Amino acid sequence: MKRFCLILLLIAAVACSVSAAAVERWGRFELAMKAKTSANPFDVELTATFSGPDTTMTVSGFYAGNGVFKVRFMPKTVGKWTYVTHSSLEALDSQQGSFECVSPSADNHGPVVVDGRYAFKYADGTRYYPIGTTAYDWMHVSADMQKLTVKSLCEARFNKIRMLLFVQNFDPGYPEPELFPFEIKSIKKDKSGRPIYEWDYTRFNPAYFDNVEKCIDMLAEIGVEADLILFHPYDDGRWNFDRMPQDVNLRYLRYVAARVSSFRNVWWSLANEYDFFRHWQPEVWDELTREIVKHDPYSHLCSIHSHTAKYYKYWEPEYTHASVQDQAPVEGFGRAATVRNIYKKPVIFDEVCYEGNMDNRWGSLSGQEMLYRMWQGTVAGTYVGHGECYMDSPTDYSRDFLAIGGTFQGEAWKRISFMRDILDAMPNPLMLSDSSWDPYTSTAGENYYIIYLGKEIKPRWTFELPVKNGVYPRLKEGVRMKVEIIDTWNMTVTECPQVFETTAPVGDRVYDKKHGSVRLPDAPYLMLRITAAE
Amino acid sequence: MKRFCLILLLIAAVACSVSAAAVERWGRFELAMKAKTSANPFDVELTATFSGPDTTMTVSGFYAGNGVFKVRFMPKTVGKWTYVTHSSLEALDSQQGSFECVSPSADNHGPVVVDGRYAFKYADGTRYYPIGTTAYDWMHVSADMQKLTVKSLCEARFNKIRMLLFVQNFDPGYPEPELFPFEIKSIKKDKSGRPIYEWDYTRFNPAYFDNVEKCIDMLAEIGVEADLILFHPYDDGRWNFDRMPQDVNLRYLRYVAARVSSFRNVWWSLANEYDFFRHWQPEVWDELTREIVKHDPYSHLCSIHSHTAKYYKYWEPEYTHASVQDQAPVEGFGRAATVRNIYKKPVIFDEVCYEGNMDNRWGSLSGQEMLYRMWQGTVAGTYVGHGECYMDSPTDYSRDFLAIGGTFQGEAWKRISFMRDILDAMPNPLMLSDSSWDPYTSTAGENYYIIYLGKEIKPRWTFELPVKNGVYPRLKEGVRMKVEIIDTWNMTVTECPQVFETTAPVGDRVYDKKHGSVRLPDAPYLMLRITAAE
Repeated sequence: MKRFCLILLLIAAVACSVSAAAVERWGRFELAMKAKTSANPFDVELTATFSGPDTTMTVSGFYAGNGVFKVRFMPKTVGKWTYVTHSSLEALDSQQGSFECVSPSADNHGPVVVDGRYAFKYADGTRYYPIGTTAYDWMHVSADMQKLTVKSLCEARFNKIRMLLFVQNFDPGYPEPELFPFEIKSIKKDKSGRPIYEWDYTRFNPAYFDNVEKCIDMLAEIGVEADLILFHPYDDGRWNFDRMPQDVNLRYLRYVAARVSSFRNVWWSLANEYDFFRHWQPEVWDELTREIVKHDPYSHLCSIHSHTAKYYKYWEPEYTHASVQDQAPVEGFGRAATVRNIYKKPVIFDEVCYEGNMDNRWGSLSGQEMLYRMWQGTVAGTYVGHGECYMDSPTDYSRDFLAIGGTFQGEAWKRISFMRDILDAMPNPLMLSDSSWDPYTSTAGENYYIIYLGKEIKPRWTFELPVKNGVYPRLKEGVRMKVEIIDTWNMTVTECPQVFETTAPVGDRVYDKKHGSVRLPDAPYLMLRITAAE
Repeated sequence: MKRFCLILLLIAAVACSVSAAAVERWGRFELAMKAKTSANPFDVELTATFSGPDTTMTVSGFYAGNGVFKVRFMPKTVGKWTYVTHSSLEALDSQQGSFECVSPSADNHGPVVVDGRYAFKYADGTRYYPIGTTAYDWMHVSADMQKLTVKSLCEARFNKIRMLLFVQNFDPGYPEPELFPFEIKSIKKDKSGRPIYEWDYTRFNPAYFDNVEKCIDMLAEIGVEADLILFHPYDDGRWNFDRMPQDVNLRYLRYVAARVSSFRNVWWSLANEYDFFRHWQPEVWDELTREIVKHDPYSHLCSIHSHTAKYYKYWEPEYTHASVQDQAPVEGFGRAATVRNIYKKPVIFDEVCYEGNMDNRWGSLSGQEMLYRMWQGTVAGTYVGHGECYMDSPTDYSRDFLAIGGTFQGEAWKRISFMRDILDAMPNPLMLSDSSWDPYTSTAGENYYIIYLGKEIKPRWTFELPVKNGVYPRLKEGVRMKVEIIDTWNMTVTECPQVFETTAPVGDRVYDKKHGSVRLPDAPYLMLRITAAE
């Protein structure tokens, strides 16, 4: 038996290449195999079973073009992994090998997972507070523009981006993209000379997906999660990727899952504004969701996004979190907490209108309003996405980060890094201390409070906190506390000189024994951080 | 065969009595049969199959005490109904008969059902806008006090009341009730001389349920729906009805269903503050809910009520609506609409704190604040329950309507009739015209708008409405409209002399062609009703 394995390995050595002898934990192992077939290579069945220190997993391979088939795998455990392939095509069957999974490098914390009920963390336990933005088509523009987008995300310190897998028809006049996801059967022209494509839905275009993967990897390099939107309704009859037959949709999802499930920074977003697919019955989404979840062996985060206030059934087990479009819950104090209380899952308000100069109600927020909404959702224990759209004419997308990425043009993005610093300094995720009774006071743990003042400008804040403290230990009598004034817009932190000392509870509230207060600057968007004095 | 039926009928005539030869549609047919058994009569299986003009239904009977077994039935269709009984006890088996179901009397509109997605109606199609209050124990106090409660409800024109089926231990010093739901096996005394009951859970006390039914019928007489709370956690070890074995819970639900499902004005509320049953796993509630729904042949409205902001999974099909405890969504404009948008079912905020003079945060609202919250939820397309608790000492419940009913003591109740008049005048149920974008403007149909001003006092209102109009036809250009100022507190309606004429849409808004406005009184709690001018 040993000699047989050896021979098999030798044969494999001729036909296959593997990505690396050693693979990081949550890195990517890739096996590439050349094989010929007279059939449609996209129809070839290929899987591989990986056996590691504590688990065995079977994952799907895929046809990568140019006669090459690939299997990718993300090992979750350090140690030796062996694999064996299974295929109806003999050349791809029973290929064996092994690799060593080693400790992850410093910036590799693994995929993001749900932590408890409302929070996220990386697989290695590191806290993850999603601070995302959107650039729908940044993957589908020039490589130079892609690099610019990545640079902008990195500089601003965003850690998540929403983006469309299918190229968007955001403007009929916008040039045709270089790559399409399917092979072209034929191109006709309509009366105005614009192309009408006939797709071969049985054959993907591997180059299209190579580009997507390159982009996802660029994001991973800078610590950004790729919230990959699998379907979108912004096609308007140009390429018709929003009205493919359901068997094609399912086949596409299986191909995507086989290709990119092994990318640790991928999230699935079934759709953007799914309810704009007016020609699809709601059950279609159930089937699509089940398909991607079934074919993702790593259980990546998964949600679906709808139009304003069309809340989806995020309580279904396939959805790890809610990906909401609605500005109303983040326009005032405590409202986002109600959404969280209902779903009992992490709630991301991925779209709460955008900073921009557009002549409509969804793309014309000031930078201040954008940041205000982000903080409103955050202090209520939810997460809020940023976005900006500045356009100098109705068809000039050059500055429209929302559409094509590039460089940020607005003001809110400059405060993201500061926001992350404030959040990263917290011992635990934020939540309202006394939900529904006090919409102003948030807690991040024992003796750790945040009071966001929003647009209110007032001369003083008198020390007063709720007795209840979320899921954390209640505030005790005799705790010496300090107050820092955080200016979320001007990005300053000013420690107040006073030290306060808590009273015993008076009803549901705790006061300072000496009735102390702090003088506030005459500015909006302030936040108080109230913590134990050293 | 004919002769056999006749003989059977003659036999039945000896042993049985029926409630009436003719029964109203949605009225109650009752068959009472004497029978002896050496077994526990509560264990006797008894059902009856009713065949009417368009349907056949089998319902359960029950043992009613004093050797009498009963079967009750609510016919939903006018015409001739026949029945036949089925029982393991011979004397109760194969009893047959018939009755005529006649048109309902003027005040009988049938049970309340869900109408579309967010609204309620009576079975005969009459609109039902729930305006409820709570008196947990009103059924478990003296008959005189019960009559007073019914008189108060009738005067105030409430049309729904929440009430506990199991008597509440709201105060250890409160006298023992006269009736208990189970037979008493033994009574011991504790050290302080207070009784410790041992219940025979296999034997109900029919007199207890007779009293409950008398109360439900009194409510039906005055058009009030009985939101019957089947379990509550306010027992504190006194009678332990909150910690019975699950088989007893289920048996109790079946007995209740057999007795009162045929009452047209019954709603099921599985529990009050179910999350305070800390010794019960969540799955217990699933089983209890399924049991009552399964044994209710008429599909009465069904929900469950939790503690503040502990939102339940009202999306499960057994729940016809959400019965929420949370004040936060009705403390500001548009927030309740978010809850409605998520659940996609009728949302009743059954507890948003109460009007009262109590020294706590949930029982100390002013009448104004109580009414304000009711209107806030209402204009956002949800429903809000009233409640009041005035106490002159911590153990004096004589004025505490919330606990024992009686007469209202506060201020909000006086405005309920006016509120109902305003709602009854509307052509359709209220909803926000442009949800999430405009939290102030509600619509009840084409050219029918409500703008609630809440606590804001402002000199003028300039004519401006959203283009979007909920599910109703959009506002067109050139519509002549009038404005009435409704003072929800002082209960006046004042028509403004101006006639406005709508512009074409300007962005998302419509204005008056002459930029008209109305002068407002210097008072809070105003509401504008903007409708087509004659």
